[in-house]
Amino acid sequence: MAQNLDQSARTPRRRSSDAPQKLPTAPEVGVGKRLQEVLDGYFPDARAELREVLDDPELRPAYGLSMEDARARTTASLEKVLATGMPHGAFRVDQGGTGATGATLTGIEMLGHNDLSVMVKSGVQWGLFGGAVSNLGTKRHEQLVRDLIELRALGCFAMTERGHGSDVQSLETTAHYDPDTQEFVLNSPTASSEKWFLGNAARDGRWAAVFCQLYTPDQEESHGVHCIVARIRNDDGSPVDGVRIGDHGVKGGLAGVDNGTLMFDHYRIPRENLLNRFADVSPEGAYTSDIESPNARFFTMLGALVRGRVTVGAAAGAATRTCLAIGTKYAHLRRQFAAEEGQPEKQLIGYRQHRLRLIPRIARSYGLQFATNLLIKRIHDLEAGNLDRANLTPEQSLDLREVEAHAAALKAANTAHATDTIQEMREATGGAGYMAENLLTVFKADSDVFTTFEGDNVVMLQLAAKELLGGFAREMRSLSNLEMVRFGLDSFGGVLRRRTGADAVIHNLLDTFTDAEESTLFDPASQMRLLIEREDRLLKSLARRLRPARKMPVAEAAEVVDRAQDHMIASAWAHIDRIILEAFFEAESAVEDERTQEVLEQVRDVYFLSVICDNAGWFLEQSLLTGTRTKAARASLNDLVDSLGPWSEVLVDAFGVPEVMLDLKLMERYDSMTPKA
Amino acid sequence: MAQNLDQSARTPRRRSSDAPQKLPTAPEVGVGKRLQEVLDGYFPDARAELREVLDDPELRPAYGLSMEDARARTTASLEKVLATGMPHGAFRVDQGGTGATGATLTGIEMLGHNDLSVMVKSGVQWGLFGGAVSNLGTKRHEQLVRDLIELRALGCFAMTERGHGSDVQSLETTAHYDPDTQEFVLNSPTASSEKWFLGNAARDGRWAAVFCQLYTPDQEESHGVHCIVARIRNDDGSPVDGVRIGDHGVKGGLAGVDNGTLMFDHYRIPRENLLNRFADVSPEGAYTSDIESPNARFFTMLGALVRGRVTVGAAAGAATRTCLAIGTKYAHLRRQFAAEEGQPEKQLIGYRQHRLRLIPRIARSYGLQFATNLLIKRIHDLEAGNLDRANLTPEQSLDLREVEAHAAALKAANTAHATDTIQEMREATGGAGYMAENLLTVFKADSDVFTTFEGDNVVMLQLAAKELLGGFAREMRSLSNLEMVRFGLDSFGGVLRRRTGADAVIHNLLDTFTDAEESTLFDPASQMRLLIEREDRLLKSLARRLRPARKMPVAEAAEVVDRAQDHMIASAWAHIDRIILEAFFEAESAVEDERTQEVLEQVRDVYFLSVICDNAGWFLEQSLLTGTRTKAARASLNDLVDSLGPWSEVLVDAFGVPEVMLDLKLMERYDSMTPKA
Repeated sequence: MAQNLDQSARTPRRRSSDAPQKLPTAPEVGVGKRLQEVLDGYFPDARAELREVLDDPELRPAYGLSMEDARARTTASLEKVLATGMPHGAFRVDQGGTGATGATLTGIEMLGHNDLSVMVKSGVQWGLFGGAVSNLGTKRHEQLVRDLIELRALGCFAMTERGHGSDVQSLETTAHYDPDTQEFVLNSPTASSEKWFLGNAARDGRWAAVFCQLYTPDQEESHGVHCIVARIRNDDGSPVDGVRIGDHGVKGGLAGVDNGTLMFDHYRIPRENLLNRFADVSPEGAYTSDIESPNARFFTMLGALVRGRVTVGAAAGAATRTCLAIGTKYAHLRRQFAAEEGQPEKQLIGYRQHRLRLIPRIARSYGLQFATNLLIKRIHDLEAGNLDRANLTPEQSLDLREVEAHAAALKAANTAHATDTIQEMREATGGAGYMAENLLTVFKADSDVFTTFEGDNVVMLQLAAKELLGGFAREMRSLSNLEMVRFGLDSFGGVLRRRTGADAVIHNLLDTFTDAEESTLFDPASQMRLLIEREDRLLKSLARRLRPARKMPVAEAAEVVDRAQDHMIASAWAHIDRIILEAFFEAESAVEDERTQEVLEQVRDVYFLSVICDNAGWFLEQSLLTGTRTKAARASLNDLVDSLGPWSEVLVDAFGVPEVMLDLKLMERYDSMTPKA
Repeated sequence: MAQNLDQSARTPRRRSSDAPQKLPTAPEVGVGKRLQEVLDGYFPDARAELREVLDDPELRPAYGLSMEDARARTTASLEKVLATGMPHGAFRVDQGGTGATGATLTGIEMLGHNDLSVMVKSGVQWGLFGGAVSNLGTKRHEQLVRDLIELRALGCFAMTERGHGSDVQSLETTAHYDPDTQEFVLNSPTASSEKWFLGNAARDGRWAAVFCQLYTPDQEESHGVHCIVARIRNDDGSPVDGVRIGDHGVKGGLAGVDNGTLMFDHYRIPRENLLNRFADVSPEGAYTSDIESPNARFFTMLGALVRGRVTVGAAAGAATRTCLAIGTKYAHLRRQFAAEEGQPEKQLIGYRQHRLRLIPRIARSYGLQFATNLLIKRIHDLEAGNLDRANLTPEQSLDLREVEAHAAALKAANTAHATDTIQEMREATGGAGYMAENLLTVFKADSDVFTTFEGDNVVMLQLAAKELLGGFAREMRSLSNLEMVRFGLDSFGGVLRRRTGADAVIHNLLDTFTDAEESTLFDPASQMRLLIEREDRLLKSLARRLRPARKMPVAEAAEVVDRAQDHMIASAWAHIDRIILEAFFEAESAVEDERTQEVLEQVRDVYFLSVICDNAGWFLEQSLLTGTRTKAARASLNDLVDSLGPWSEVLVDAFGVPEVMLDLKLMERYDSMTPKA
């Protein structure tokens, strides 16, 4: 796979305390091209290919269609996605795939530029359903993998239940093995066990990968949550006997995704349908698994599905970039109010307040994309190493844990940024932004649930914080909050700072910094140390707060953990802010061109100063910065958005949003239109 | 009109530095009833009446309908609203109305609890179109007023043009008077002059109140923007000759409102159709007006329309309260994760982080409702005084200016709060919140444009700040930014703090405070002084920044103003935060019951501490608070949401949301359902 970034770690140049120079007011288009190369990351061919495919009016998001029409349109679009060959990368060569993990994850991300219904439906089919069968199944499920890749077998990922969203281990659906017929009996024992919110269920799915409590006759208790594939519809589309299918109907968005429900009534399924990579049941009913602990087994299964979380975050990032491009280009086009009569009206981008709405968000999008690129590369490299998840080396185990923590953190960061930014772009484009034809409201509605699905953001942030709290064993996350506290804190202080893929650059950078130096707001090493210090302090004080809980009775200890929830979440954000900065440095290290370097430095400065301004209270409380410095940070942020204002269109051009997505009514230049055309 | 609050100003009790006591964990329903009395404000009968009418499944918001069905449903709902008699209050008795301004504004606000399409369509018909004809017209337009009240004449408010949203004075539509035929010739000379985003235009409107540049033969230049009523459709619904009607089609929400466009092609209209309350044209073509300055005339006309801005803010507040009720009740119902196996899962409200998502937003909704109640009462009292807007006393003029500034500020504050809170409620209810049947996404989509229409929030905040900058003459706001700076700052330092209607209470409160006292976070007088100090400092430093501009050339001075835009907006927020706190004290002063007082104090403390925490950086930079104090504020906020957690359902019950709005799928108690019902 192509890599356009040099991994041999050129250190970002140090800088004195001087604020950056104002850029020339005439932006250079060439810089945009070079910035795009950096943003395109490690799988530029995948981006280029999808960019071309996506420049297609039929792959723009629709609106105002009936539910059935919207769903049919999305299903048809999946064939176009399949035709690119991109989905094959999610599967191994022996399964009919190509194993090009990084290219596929990048490809799914690119779908986010256009129609999120297509992205989600692709993610359900190839990522979740396909990922479950391919990663949790074995040889005997190979034909199903081939069929699902080619869209001959559409399926749902039947994990969530009405009563259990984030708390997957409490799922209630049961599968009892019957040795007499060599079948599993799948059942939904309660109303709260109904499978819920499943994409592909209401209309198209013929199959479901059903997560359920597994029982065998030799043991009264459940063996824990396992996954079984089941037919849910006949070829003619009617539900099979024993399965009741419901339709969630209209949602807040994603009109093209057919979310529905499933209930099982003592539904019998062949033994072979158990996805048996990590555990199996013999014809006689004996349960076996290479992984002894039920918790470890559960998380090994879930871990194999981390890619869904990565693509949800990445695609939300792409959707955000499309909306930033729309909002920014409109700001260069639209004029309102003249300074005095007779003067031409001012472009929106000419207003400081408008620049402050756009440019810090563009900067954060740059940083998030750099960090997401690194994460995808890391997953690609891991998978290329032919991971045996049931028998990991300690090194692989640590790697995986880090990747999962970063996936959770960046899922939350990317989707929260999407929610904030798409909303801001809707508002920044005024009434025009409210017209569906200009697509911002479609993105708003479609992206809204991204903060919830594939792991609620509040849960994701706590997950990331827990991972950070120490070099926990994989099983740790399966423990209750209390057990985590009791067990985990002993190992705190170990590997506090996880590798992000930018290690060499950061190492070199910090090496150049001496403790005697006074830190400044513009020097790379100073910036890095300030965000590291924030993360460290928050984590250490969090650990101190939680430590007493170890000696408390259950209920009391749970209270201690609960009362530290805001602290835990603050720690996760500090971590996210830090790894984004690292990703900036990594990206900058690959830039040769002087002007491009200068622009990218200013973008990073905007990102960094926004973090400082947004958290000024904390830095002041901690005496890490003085009031003079935080005021200076705000003034500098203003200067920087002034400097980058004329460049802002170049900055969003570098996102490489498919052109068809910018061919919108609100982009029409009507000033020069003849009256009443 | 009934008033349930005692205006004779009982002073809130002072409090020592002690943090408030934890409330009992068993909430008292009676407190909810008493809180509702306080929240219901000055026109409780109007609320009670509408509450009953709105408890009607047909007045719930719809979703998933075709555009035509959604529009037809809204139009039908307007008949139900008419049947309440509520719209009549917006019109004078001699026009066929009742003059019950306060009750009507409160009634329109109440519509916001249910279906925002109905609220907006009502606002367009009776508030904007009706308000224009009734307030800008004279005797000769009386029949039209009677017809529009009774929905016999549906009309649009044709102000906004494609090229001109917030900048109304630059409108391009022209009306040239032709003495030969005694007609105005209405024309849309450019593409950018097309009337845009007009509710009631695409489907239902038969009339339009058209804002246009008025020309008479005796003068080459426009007399400024005036308003003329024009037929746009024939009785059979076809457009009249000379008018081209367009349809904006699908929008981000408000599916039931038929937004469209109008273009005029030398369309001839009788002279009498000029709304001639403030200016007229004689049959011979002579222009006359009691108000000499075109700017003053323009703002007198706009001022008569302030009620639209008030109801948009108020209704956004009601919509927010519905969503808070949904989110909070769900948090008491829904359980996720158990502390240990075998234990029941915990209610969402049992999580600290979840309480922090809900309770500060509930508290702000309380404060905003109190402030909005005061504003509506003030407008009611002003209008009851039979205002002659062309000949105001200096006292009335000041009053009106204050009311307009508060209307702008509270429009921005209410709608920004709606956008933030409805989004948060969607996320806090997880996947369930994304299903249209649970209505949060419908509210999200429908309320989204409230930050934009009736005055973009960024413009509103600057308008409020400009008003605050001194005791400016009414004409001030019509000046360009530059002229404002040149002229206005001389008068700075005068009436800095505007009356909010809570004057007596605040006066008494501050009187009890001695400068020698150390301020604490929980004492009412301390709280008041801290927010006053913030507003004053921001305004004074803003004035200092702007002052040099007076001596600069135009372009340079405009730059100075532009660079202070963020400062201006920060000042407006400081003002808003202060008047909300005042409104809290005013509301508290009417409470007799001890426990209710205690609860309401804690709600106010939550509001106040949220403001402190959200602006901790600023207070620290200014050395108004130490880091120890801001940390204490955060800790106290946590304690308070713990204290109010069990009471949170009582707090939202007090909003008095029509019950039908809470009869939702996500409220079903399915735990006890028999399996597979």
